[in-house]
Amino acid sequence: MPRRDFHAEFPAQAADRVIRAALDEDVGTGDVTTRVTVPAGIRVRARLVAREPLRLAGLPAFYRVFELLGAADAAWDVAFRDGDDVPAGATVLAVDADARVLLTGERTALNLLQRLSGVATQARRWAAHLDGTRARLVDTRKTTPGLRALEKYAVRVGGAANHRAGLFDGVLIKENHIRAAGGIGAAVAAARAGVPHTLRVEVEVTDLAELDQALDAGADAVLLDNMDPGTLARAVRRTGGRAVLEASGGVTEDRLRAIAETGVDLISAGALTHSARAVDLSLLFDPPGATRC
Amino acid sequence: MPRRDFHAEFPAQAADRVIRAALDEDVGTGDVTTRVTVPAGIRVRARLVAREPLRLAGLPAFYRVFELLGAADAAWDVAFRDGDDVPAGATVLAVDADARVLLTGERTALNLLQRLSGVATQARRWAAHLDGTRARLVDTRKTTPGLRALEKYAVRVGGAANHRAGLFDGVLIKENHIRAAGGIGAAVAAARAGVPHTLRVEVEVTDLAELDQALDAGADAVLLDNMDPGTLARAVRRTGGRAVLEASGGVTEDRLRAIAETGVDLISAGALTHSARAVDLSLLFDPPGATRC
Amino acid sequence: MPRRDFHAEFPAQAADRVIRAALDEDVGTGDVTTRVTVPAGIRVRARLVAREPLRLAGLPAFYRVFELLGAADAAWDVAFRDGDDVPAGATVLAVDADARVLLTGERTALNLLQRLSGVATQARRWAAHLDGTRARLVDTRKTTPGLRALEKYAVRVGGAANHRAGLFDGVLIKENHIRAAGGIGAAVAAARAGVPHTLRVEVEVTDLAELDQALDAGADAVLLDNMDPGTLARAVRRTGGRAVLEASGGVTEDRLRAIAETGVDLISAGALTHSARAVDLSLLFDPPGATRC
Amino acid sequence: MPRRDFHAEFPAQAADRVIRAALDEDVGTGDVTTRVTVPAGIRVRARLVAREPLRLAGLPAFYRVFELLGAADAAWDVAFRDGDDVPAGATVLAVDADARVLLTGERTALNLLQRLSGVATQARRWAAHLDGTRARLVDTRKTTPGLRALEKYAVRVGGAANHRAGLFDGVLIKENHIRAAGGIGAAVAAARAGVPHTLRVEVEVTDLAELDQALDAGADAVLLDNMDPGTLARAVRRTGGRAVLEASGGVTEDRLRAIAETGVDLISAGALTHSARAVDLSLLFDPPGATRC
Amino acid sequence: MPRRDFHAEFPAQAADRVIRAALDEDVGTGDVTTRVTVPAGIRVRARLVAREPLRLAGLPAFYRVFELLGAADAAWDVAFRDGDDVPAGATVLAVDADARVLLTGERTALNLLQRLSGVATQARRWAAHLDGTRARLVDTRKTTPGLRALEKYAVRVGGAANHRAGLFDGVLIKENHIRAAGGIGAAVAAARAGVPHTLRVEVEVTDLAELDQALDAGADAVLLDNMDPGTLARAVRRTGGRAVLEASGGVTEDRLRAIAETGVDLISAGALTHSARAVDLSLLFDPPGATRC
Amino acid sequence: MPRRDFHAEFPAQAADRVIRAALDEDVGTGDVTTRVTVPAGIRVRARLVAREPLRLAGLPAFYRVFELLGAADAAWDVAFRDGDDVPAGATVLAVDADARVLLTGERTALNLLQRLSGVATQARRWAAHLDGTRARLVDTRKTTPGLRALEKYAVRVGGAANHRAGLFDGVLIKENHIRAAGGIGAAVAAARAGVPHTLRVEVEVTDLAELDQALDAGADAVLLDNMDPGTLARAVRRTGGRAVLEASGGVTEDRLRAIAETGVDLISAGALTHSARAVDLSLLFDPPGATRC
Repeated sequence: MPRRDFHAEFPAQAADRVIRAALDEDVGTGDVTTRVTVPAGIRVRARLVAREPLRLAGLPAFYRVFELLGAADAAWDVAFRDGDDVPAGATVLAVDADARVLLTGERTALNLLQRLSGVATQARRWAAHLDGTRARLVDTRKTTPGLRALEKYAVRVGGAANHRAGLFDGVLIKENHIRAAGGIGAAVAAARAGVPHTLRVEVEVTDLAELDQALDAGADAVLLDNMDPGTLARAVRRTGGRAVLEASGGVTEDRLRAIAETGVDLISAGALTHSARAVDLSLLFDPPGATRC
Repeated sequence: MPRRDFHAEFPAQAADRVIRAALDEDVGTGDVTTRVTVPAGIRVRARLVAREPLRLAGLPAFYRVFELLGAADAAWDVAFRDGDDVPAGATVLAVDADARVLLTGERTALNLLQRLSGVATQARRWAAHLDGTRARLVDTRKTTPGLRALEKYAVRVGGAANHRAGLFDGVLIKENHIRAAGGIGAAVAAARAGVPHTLRVEVEVTDLAELDQALDAGADAVLLDNMDPGTLARAVRRTGGRAVLEASGGVTEDRLRAIAETGVDLISAGALTHSARAVDLSLLFDPPGATRC
Repeated sequence: MPRRDFHAEFPAQAADRVIRAALDEDVGTGDVTTRVTVPAGIRVRARLVAREPLRLAGLPAFYRVFELLGAADAAWDVAFRDGDDVPAGATVLAVDADARVLLTGERTALNLLQRLSGVATQARRWAAHLDGTRARLVDTRKTTPGLRALEKYAVRVGGAANHRAGLFDGVLIKENHIRAAGGIGAAVAAARAGVPHTLRVEVEVTDLAELDQALDAGADAVLLDNMDPGTLARAVRRTGGRAVLEASGGVTEDRLRAIAETGVDLISAGALTHSARAVDLSLLFDPPGATRC
Repeated sequence: MPRRDFHAEFPAQAADRVIRAALDEDVGTGDVTTRVTVPAGIRVRARLVAREPLRLAGLPAFYRVFELLGAADAAWDVAFRDGDDVPAGATVLAVDADARVLLTGERTALNLLQRLSGVATQARRWAAHLDGTRARLVDTRKTTPGLRALEKYAVRVGGAANHRAGLFDGVLIKENHIRAAGGIGAAVAAARAGVPHTLRVEVEVTDLAELDQALDAGADAVLLDNMDPGTLARAVRRTGGRAVLEASGGVTEDRLRAIAETGVDLISAGALTHSARAVDLSLLFDPPGATRC
Repeated sequence: MPRRDFHAEFPAQAADRVIRAALDEDVGTGDVTTRVTVPAGIRVRARLVAREPLRLAGLPAFYRVFELLGAADAAWDVAFRDGDDVPAGATVLAVDADARVLLTGERTALNLLQRLSGVATQARRWAAHLDGTRARLVDTRKTTPGLRALEKYAVRVGGAANHRAGLFDGVLIKENHIRAAGGIGAAVAAARAGVPHTLRVEVEVTDLAELDQALDAGADAVLLDNMDPGTLARAVRRTGGRAVLEASGGVTEDRLRAIAETGVDLISAGALTHSARAVDLSLLFDPPGATRC
Repeated sequence: MPRRDFHAEFPAQAADRVIRAALDEDVGTGDVTTRVTVPAGIRVRARLVAREPLRLAGLPAFYRVFELLGAADAAWDVAFRDGDDVPAGATVLAVDADARVLLTGERTALNLLQRLSGVATQARRWAAHLDGTRARLVDTRKTTPGLRALEKYAVRVGGAANHRAGLFDGVLIKENHIRAAGGIGAAVAAARAGVPHTLRVEVEVTDLAELDQALDAGADAVLLDNMDPGTLARAVRRTGGRAVLEASGGVTEDRLRAIAETGVDLISAGALTHSARAVDLSLLFDPPGATRC
């Protein structure tokens, strides 16, 4: 089976909006330093080097920064692609391009790549804890404002999966919806009647009594909020396959395995996006005569 | 002296762009759950509660999310404002508003406020290490793509200060500029001649020999890259006030005090923005009859 | 039970984009006729009259046109709202406003209201054929480019329901997806594994053998394409509640009842949006001294 | 004489705005079905087939949908172009392109092409009724919000002509303008004095007495509103070439010939745009080994 | 007769685009000087003073700058409005508003008002030369990129009139169109047949022989390019009222009277917009205790 | 040393915004004259000719107009580039392109090029007066709304230099800032403490007493407002190199030399942008068989 081609599912349009905003805020009326110190038309060669082991995510955005700055004729030597695990010290790519464009775009390109690779690297490590269980690790809506499509992509590159993209592609009935609708049964019935049949109906519950109500109401999925492994295991047995079960709330890396072993279908963790650390990548400019990757 | 009014310098226009993008990506074609389970016209009361001690930053963005969703008639009871230190458990504000609007905007509003307060809270803690020294703690361009103005605002709210906003409002000559220009002297001269006189000319150096060249060239400021405290102290003595000195590179919280005590003017740290952790804030909906803050 | 408040779920943001585009294309550099013949500051009164029986949809857009043109101080007397059935000859509303604004916005406001009310009026008539059956009438993606959110809203106002809003909030596996994935089973499995668990997986089939494959693969829903009532009835029996069944293809008004009586859950019809006729509504300007609605 | 090249006058900029909006609303955060079932890099061949006789209009928009989705390397075999009459069953074009792009863009591309060809097909049929008369058939401002430039283009492709594009490129004085200006004479004089000399001044009248006033006032054109053929013929004789005469109001296909034979210069009909029916066109995907058009 | 209310025809939407662009380019990431030197919440009073006699144009844009910066509660004392002639030294208005907003917006507001009043002031002076003749003075398309609607408005405020707004609301057949169409007759016929009947057809000619051709072809208007008064007078006699005559090319202030006396209907001059000089207006901030206008 | 390559520092992104706005306002719904008189697919050749001696600025914008209109295959013969001095009568370039595109874009392209070359031509003449002095001639913020980046570029092309780009990249403390801050000393201290260290602090003074205060406060630069040469010379002596000195206010061409000889570092003049006259350039279409440049 061919390796999954992440570049083909990169959210290019969302990325373009982010990159244009990032260039606007960084370059603004112009990179004054580069304009006055670097003559037009000089080409340089630079290498992108991983300073720590990482799962690469965001390379299409990295290229795009320089393309938007006018580096149509840049020559790229690429050794790794999104989804690859890059060892510390490895050269991800080398590029030969106009010096002004490289210097002006460097920070914006790195800011994006380091953040997205950071999300993918953490997701890969977390997802590994679930190996051999039936559980799937998924993200949440706790993403960086403006970067949701990119961060959710990076989560997939890291080997985890996505929860709904937003409030529009999934029904998740929480406590306040239940209270406004007049109970779990009424809320599930209203959802069934009012949303497209292409959407499942999921209900958030905090104890097993509520779980029973949700199952009785015919919920397709149930979010088990902040339950300990023992309760989760009981919920799994009680449900007996009648609904998809999602464990959520207070999920930390060291609790992942225990949760997964309860038999739940999904574990969702806001930390996958809101607490990922940027990984360390540098763009090194070659002195004249240096060798290539 | 009156307390500094951070709300008056909140970057409202930049925030609006971010909030609109965040609402677009979260709400999209509509919050289907809320539409079908919560009747139109119901009002609820909710309280915003700090789950940990924090420096508050981003309240104007928090309000704005709900205003853009149509909550023109929301009633706000506000106990803290940007720049205030909020103890764990305290209620930041209470709001009485349309239930649909509160439920639809909750996640977007919290995502922003938690992130910005996280930056401010970390900045406050870091800045405290410099008390009594002449050093000023400043941020860098290592900000989240699209959020620069907001993160730089949060840095100020936290008590640290800003480096240049982008490539357009400061000259910082780095190694590759120097190489392209033909040396430190040539680069500084080109900058002097070619940029508005309203900008200072700063040069990045990696050792004391380069510092001497920068000073001889008449640089207004010098970035001392990755130097240990001993070298930094020698640089300070050697410079004798002829230029502003900025220590940068590998700055961590535990090294801050030692660097500050070398006598440098500025310490810049990418971690102020790229490694801040979101703080924990929740929006709690009151059951009927609950009391207010 | 209170009457459903459609105005509260009107897609105001999508409408604003459409209205601004419509005003741009109609008003452009200015309504030259009105500018030179109608003095500034004259107020007139006009009544919106239904020329045929209709289900009203789009009133918020009608108001908004004049609001965007500056009629902040218009006085509205409203007799009907979205979702109401208006008899021929009835006055929907009366308005007292600046003459220039009313004359300039009249065509744009009517174009929108007539089209949306046309969709709602047809949907109401079609939906009535399903009374007493279990079938729900739903729209498709065959909407007017740029008007999808508005037309899908009008479908709901008419008493029918919505299929997915786009390619993002529902999985519908068609023949070419099946061929590319290597069969129905493989396609369903890929969808299960790769899309958020909040989405159901629906498969389009053309005969009962394919229906069996889809059910065996565990599809949540099956689109029965272009089948006659006899075959649909057999499909319903064969499925026995294991999946949601949607009849689609070649659905015309005179076939609706027969299809609904086969026991399918959903009937989808592109005609709900692509073939609705605009209904006849006029804005009549009162001569001085005329009485009001 | 060479055949008129409609593609050269296609309103590409207006079309781009519509297509981007249509793709935004249909694709949104992504075509989830195609992403998970169709591997990257597969090419397929599809043929666009007319299901009924039609006048083709909108082919540039059809191409553009796929181009915007990234099908830069699609190979097109084109048999017909805008302005051609396509018989039922004929293959309009064949395309060889990336499978994902074709599947994702299919609906948006067809929605546009079916609608515009529908307008052109109806316009062609209506215009034929005027053959041999001096009358020219023209559209109105009763167009689909957001699609005016495209629909007016389709009207031309169908062999009819355009009335003014909006309120900015033509003066049309109606009853309310006349009342505000203080009479037909005053209104015409105000228009003459206040609008660019590049615009003609047209007045709407409802009987022959008003026609006389308009002619006396020096109107360049007169819109004869809702008159029967006998009255129209009298208006033509009375005018004696002093003004362009436009018959309007209640124009239906079966009345066209009688109106045209009265000698009026123009017949305008809102139905050309607001009541055109989408024509039936399908995109058929070839199984492997199929032959080409 | 009431004074013409120019504010009612001010192109507010076009102005908003210009003002937002102007604020973006001037304020950018913030007015750093004002932020650090002027405390939040201080109110100041300022007077707008004419430094030379001028015809005022652009006051709505002046207000709007401060409104967009947040001066919702500014108090305005207005002595003059658009269309008024302001003597040197007169106070146009006084304003009491937030100090930060006034200081940040001052330059942008003045740049607009000085330019538009400059256009109006020059137009008024030029138009006066035509008093008592039948000629009307009109502008051209030689406007500042992005400011056309505003400059054409200022021309009207100055007492001159507008030629077509752009290429879309008037037909003007020039030498190259004639050559491509195959002669004046063919070009006029093509225009008649192909453009909306609401547009007149104008032809540019360079001598009397071409004028004859244009008249024979039935042109509605003729632009007489670069002719001396003698030739213009002959053209007027030759035309005998059969077409509107526009003198154009090389029109300077000192030639205006002589051209007007030839009997032409229109004189067009690019200088009305491309050569107007900004007039001198200052915003003076009152020291505490100063008196008002 | 290679000639400075101005095209490499042309503000292409800002230009694109201006050009799109200019085309929108000029072309709007279409160039009706060209559409009906010029057949599709005809190519013509045109030459751009200088009607007076000028310093060329804005050629990239000139090309871009036609590129945006679709002239991808235009063939350009270029004899001069930005920064070149073009003698009267010289052909700047020749172009062979689609006739429709050239005719439709001609006015917009010329409007931009004539204006920018006008700024550059005037700047060159003014700057020449400073030859041999230490003074540098700089522009101000008195630019055309929306065109700042382009006009500041043209100033550089003309051989003068730029003051700050806006309120964000330079501190300039004026009278009202001083009053609000409580004096020159307090204002300078606030600026030092509150703005990035990459910005210099400049203070505007009106007499030598204020100059002394500014120097004592440690201002990096001082704007000497409206002083006569004698006072300026005294200011230069008094300052003794402690700050950059900028002469401003009432600067006219005939006063330039005298001011420069006082020894100030900078002379700023709003006239560089707000009073430049458009230079005369024409696009001449070749008759068939004409020779090339």
